[in-house]
Amino acid sequence: MSDPARDARLSYVLTLSCPNRPGIVAAISQALFELGGDIAGAQQFDERESRIFFMRVVFSVPAGGVERAVLGQALAALAARFDMHWSLRESLRPTRTVIMVSRFDHCLVDLLYRWRIGELAIAPVAIIANHPRETYAHIDLDGIPFHYLPVTAATKAAQEARMAEIVRGTGAELVVLARYMQILSDSMSAWLAGRCINIHHSFLPGFKGARPYHQAFARGVKLIGATAHFVTPDLDEGPIIEQDVERITHADTPDDLIRKGRDIERRVLARAVRYFTECRVIPNGRKTIVFNP
Amino acid sequence: MSDPARDARLSYVLTLSCPNRPGIVAAISQALFELGGDIAGAQQFDERESRIFFMRVVFSVPAGGVERAVLGQALAALAARFDMHWSLRESLRPTRTVIMVSRFDHCLVDLLYRWRIGELAIAPVAIIANHPRETYAHIDLDGIPFHYLPVTAATKAAQEARMAEIVRGTGAELVVLARYMQILSDSMSAWLAGRCINIHHSFLPGFKGARPYHQAFARGVKLIGATAHFVTPDLDEGPIIEQDVERITHADTPDDLIRKGRDIERRVLARAVRYFTECRVIPNGRKTIVFNP
Amino acid sequence: MSDPARDARLSYVLTLSCPNRPGIVAAISQALFELGGDIAGAQQFDERESRIFFMRVVFSVPAGGVERAVLGQALAALAARFDMHWSLRESLRPTRTVIMVSRFDHCLVDLLYRWRIGELAIAPVAIIANHPRETYAHIDLDGIPFHYLPVTAATKAAQEARMAEIVRGTGAELVVLARYMQILSDSMSAWLAGRCINIHHSFLPGFKGARPYHQAFARGVKLIGATAHFVTPDLDEGPIIEQDVERITHADTPDDLIRKGRDIERRVLARAVRYFTECRVIPNGRKTIVFNP
Amino acid sequence: MSDPARDARLSYVLTLSCPNRPGIVAAISQALFELGGDIAGAQQFDERESRIFFMRVVFSVPAGGVERAVLGQALAALAARFDMHWSLRESLRPTRTVIMVSRFDHCLVDLLYRWRIGELAIAPVAIIANHPRETYAHIDLDGIPFHYLPVTAATKAAQEARMAEIVRGTGAELVVLARYMQILSDSMSAWLAGRCINIHHSFLPGFKGARPYHQAFARGVKLIGATAHFVTPDLDEGPIIEQDVERITHADTPDDLIRKGRDIERRVLARAVRYFTECRVIPNGRKTIVFNP
Repeated sequence: MSDPARDARLSYVLTLSCPNRPGIVAAISQALFELGGDIAGAQQFDERESRIFFMRVVFSVPAGGVERAVLGQALAALAARFDMHWSLRESLRPTRTVIMVSRFDHCLVDLLYRWRIGELAIAPVAIIANHPRETYAHIDLDGIPFHYLPVTAATKAAQEARMAEIVRGTGAELVVLARYMQILSDSMSAWLAGRCINIHHSFLPGFKGARPYHQAFARGVKLIGATAHFVTPDLDEGPIIEQDVERITHADTPDDLIRKGRDIERRVLARAVRYFTECRVIPNGRKTIVFNP
Repeated sequence: MSDPARDARLSYVLTLSCPNRPGIVAAISQALFELGGDIAGAQQFDERESRIFFMRVVFSVPAGGVERAVLGQALAALAARFDMHWSLRESLRPTRTVIMVSRFDHCLVDLLYRWRIGELAIAPVAIIANHPRETYAHIDLDGIPFHYLPVTAATKAAQEARMAEIVRGTGAELVVLARYMQILSDSMSAWLAGRCINIHHSFLPGFKGARPYHQAFARGVKLIGATAHFVTPDLDEGPIIEQDVERITHADTPDDLIRKGRDIERRVLARAVRYFTECRVIPNGRKTIVFNP
Repeated sequence: MSDPARDARLSYVLTLSCPNRPGIVAAISQALFELGGDIAGAQQFDERESRIFFMRVVFSVPAGGVERAVLGQALAALAARFDMHWSLRESLRPTRTVIMVSRFDHCLVDLLYRWRIGELAIAPVAIIANHPRETYAHIDLDGIPFHYLPVTAATKAAQEARMAEIVRGTGAELVVLARYMQILSDSMSAWLAGRCINIHHSFLPGFKGARPYHQAFARGVKLIGATAHFVTPDLDEGPIIEQDVERITHADTPDDLIRKGRDIERRVLARAVRYFTECRVIPNGRKTIVFNP
Repeated sequence: MSDPARDARLSYVLTLSCPNRPGIVAAISQALFELGGDIAGAQQFDERESRIFFMRVVFSVPAGGVERAVLGQALAALAARFDMHWSLRESLRPTRTVIMVSRFDHCLVDLLYRWRIGELAIAPVAIIANHPRETYAHIDLDGIPFHYLPVTAATKAAQEARMAEIVRGTGAELVVLARYMQILSDSMSAWLAGRCINIHHSFLPGFKGARPYHQAFARGVKLIGATAHFVTPDLDEGPIIEQDVERITHADTPDDLIRKGRDIERRVLARAVRYFTECRVIPNGRKTIVFNP
C-alpha cells in the first residue's frame, strides 16, 4: 500500500486445484516468473485423503506488461499438463454481490457498513428481501437496487425464477443470505453452488433447523455460536467456511441468546464474505479450504 | 485468606432450591445473621419457566460459635416453611473423589497435578482403570488406591458391582470419568446421578457417540470443543456443566484434532470438577445452574 | 417477559456499597420484603482489602403498591444505619446518553443500531462531534440533536463549556466517547467522573497513548484488544469496565489491525454501555466491580 | 501418516530469508524438483518494510535418493545467488532441549508429559533447576539428567558458566525457561539468542517485570495473559512467539489469577516450543514470523 513501486503493478489472485504430484509449484512459479510476475504470497494444501493439491497465489505484473489474456493462455497450458482447475481474478476488483434478507436486518446493516467504509471489497448490485422496503426504513441503501420479492408456498417457484433473473442480470458473483429466512429450493441451491453463502445461527452441526437459539436454551449449552457455510441442497449441511462462539450462562434467556447471537452472526458472516472476496475459500467436497494469512 | 479475623471462623457453603416466592432471601439471611453467620457471598437464580428459585450462600460463623447441628436445625425449619431442598458443606473439606480412566491418561495426570499443588480441593480416594497399573507407569499415585477393573460384555455387571462397592466403601462424593471409555449401565448411571462427571471430547450436542474428532474432521468444522456433563442413563445427553472450544483449520488432521482436544478436555474437566467441589453446580432437570464468581 | 404477573409490577435496580459487617443482606432483604418487594436477582461482592461491601439487587413491587418515595425513605434509613452509598433506578427507564464522536463512526453507528432495535436501553439525547454533520451523511440520526463542536487548542475551553451545557441541558446520565479523539481537560474529566465511558483502541495497560495499533504492530504482539473504561483526569488510567482481544499474525499490517480492531472496539464499548445502563458497573477506586449474570 | 508411499521418503523443513526480488520461489521449487523433492507444504511472507522475504518449505525426497550433503550444496548455490540465510532440518529428528525451572513446576510437568506421549518432538537432554531435586520429588524424570545449580548474586557468573557448559555438552538446540525465575545475564542472553524461549506470566507489553499477576490485580484488568518470547538482553522485550489470555472478574483474587495463569502459561509455552521444533518460528528483528498451518 505504501509502496509506490508495487502500486504501479497489477495484482492478481490465482487459485487452483489438481491431482498432487511433484513439480506443480515449480512449474507455476517458473511460469509466473517468466511472464514478469512477482509472487507476493502463496499458500498451498495437500489433501492427504483425496491426494488433491490446492493452491492460492497472489502475484503482480508490471502495469503495461503482460496482458491478462496471455496470463490466461499460460495458465491454460499448465492446466492441461497438470489436469488443473484454476481461476484468476484481479485483486482489486470488488465482488458483485446480491444480498438477501428477511425481517432481521443486523447482518445486512453490518455488510453495508463494511462496504461503505471500504473494508469489504464487495459491490452490492442488488438487495432482495421478502419484506417491503419500509421494513428497512432506517437504512440508507445509497442507490443499491432493492427488490421486494414476497414468497408463499404457491409463489415460491416464480419468486426464485425472479431471483435467478436478478442474479443473472446483475452479473452477481456472490449471493449472501444475510439472515434470509426462506429455504432455497434444491434446484436453486444447486444452481448457486459455490457462490452462495448463508449464515446459520447455531454452531453447526449442533441445533440444525429452526429456532436454534431456543434449542440451545433447552439443551443448556454453555457456549452458543454461528456458522457461515456454502448453500447446498442438503439443508444446514453445506461446506462450513467460518464459525465462532460466545459464552453464555444459565441466566441467559432465549432473548439474551438472540442478542449475543447477533454479534456472532455479524462477524462470522462478514469474515466469510471477506474470505470469499479475497479468493481464500475453495470448496472441497463437504468441506472447505480457507487460506488465511 | 490474608484476613486473620476471618480465618478464625468456620466457612460453609449452603445451596438450596425451592418454589419461588417473596421473602426467601430475607428469611435465609435473617436466620444466618441470628446464628452469628456472616455472608461472604451469595448468588441466586430465579428460573422463569419452572418458577424454581436457586441460591448459593457462602457464610462463616465464629469458630467455637454455633454448632453444625444447630445450623442444620435452623435450615430444616426454613426448608419446611419454603418447601426447600438444601445442602450444607464446610468450604474447606476436600471432596472425596473416585477417578476412572482408560488408556488415555491426560485428564488423570492433570487432575492429580492440580490436586497435588492444592489447586483442586479433591481428596482422591480411589483410581479405577480398565487397564492395568503399568499403563500408568510414569504416574506417581502417591498412595492413592489403584483398582484394575477390566471389563468385557460378559463381566460388565460384576465390574460395575465392584465399582459401586469402591464408591460406597470410600465414601466418595464424586466420581469423575476422566476419559473412561466404557459406557456405564443405565442403573449405574442412575445410581450416580448428580455426582458423576464425564468429559466428552466434542462440543455437544454436535458429534455425539464414538470418535467425535473423526466426525469433526469429516464434517469440516472450524472449531472443536469438549463438554463436561453429569452422567445420566441418556448417553451424551446429561446436564452440561462446562464447555470450551479451540480453532482448527482445514490443515488439521484427525491427529491434530486429538492433540488440540487434549488441552480443551483437560481444562474443561478441571473447571467442572472445581465448580463441583465449590458447590457451584446445581442440576436443574436437563440443565445445570453454575454459579460462577 | 412472558410472565404477566411479573409484568404488572414495577422493577427496580438497587446498587449500594458500605463498610462490610454482618447483617447487611438480612436488613436489606427484610426491608424490601416488608415493602412488598420481590427480589428477582442479587449479586454481592466483599472487597477483602478495603472491607467494603458492594451489592446489586433487582426487585419488583406491585404496580400501585409502595411508592418510590417510600422506597427511598426506607433505603435512606438503612443507609444511615450501615453508612451506605446507594442508588435506586427503575429498570425499564432508558439511560439518557450523549454520544461523542470524531471522524471514525463505527462505534457511533453500532450504538445507534443497537438502540434502534431495542437492544441497548439508552435514550440518545445528543450527538456531539468535532466534525461537521456531512461527515456522517449516511447515518439516519432519527431526530437526535447533532452538535458540531470543532475544537482547537485555542477554543478548547469554550468547546468544553458548550459540551457541559449540552450534558446539563439534556439531563444526560451518561457520556460515551465513541472514538472521540480529543483529550478531555482534567476539570471536564473530573466533572464527568463515573458517568463518562471511553473506548481505548488497545488492550490497556499495553500501548497507552496515540496510535496504539501502530505500537502493537511495531512490538509484534500476537493478540490485539480494546478497553472500555471510565474517563478520569489520568489519561488511559481510568477504571476498566470491559476488555476483549482478537488474534493477529505477523502478516497483519497496521491497516489489518485497524480493521480487526473496529470489531473489538464496537463490541467492547457496546457491552460496557449495556453494563452501565443495567447498573452492573460500580467504580471502586482505580478498578470497577462488574456484576455480570 | 497413512500414506506408505510418503513414509518411504525422508522429510525436511527448509527455512530461509533473503532480500525480496522476483524469481525466488521459482528458483527454490525448481531446484527441489530437480533433486527429486516433493513439496508437501510451503509458506512465505513478504515483509513490506524491510523488503525481506521469508519462506518455510516442507518437502520430502525418496529414501535412498539424493543425500543431505547434495541438498546442502544446491541450497548453498541458491543462497549465494539470492543472498539468502537458510537452514535445513530433518522433520522427524527431535529437538535437543534443555529445560530450566525454579520452584513452580507446572510448565516443566506439562512439557515432560507432552514429550512422553509423543506430542512434542523434543529430546530433553537436561533439566537445570535452582532448587534441589527433592523439590520435584513427584516427577518421574525418566533418566533425564538433572542439574541442581543454585544461584546467588555472588555465584551467578559461575552458575551461568556451568549452564553454558551443559548446553554445549548436550548439543542442545533449544533452552526453555519453564518459569525459571532468574534473570539471565546480558552475555548469556546474547549467547542464546534465537534458541532460548521464556514464558512471561503476563500479556506483554502490559505488566513487565516482577509479580505481574499482582500488577494485573491492582490495575483491575478484565483479562490476563501469558507471553512466550525469545530471550534477549532487553528483559521482557524479546520477540514474541505466542500469547493467550483468559477472562477474569473483580472477584478474582491474586491467588485466582495465579491459578488461571498457570493454565495459560502451560499452553502458551507448549505451543511456542512446538512451533520452534517444527521450524515455524523465524526471528525478525524485534518480532517473529510464525508460520502456522
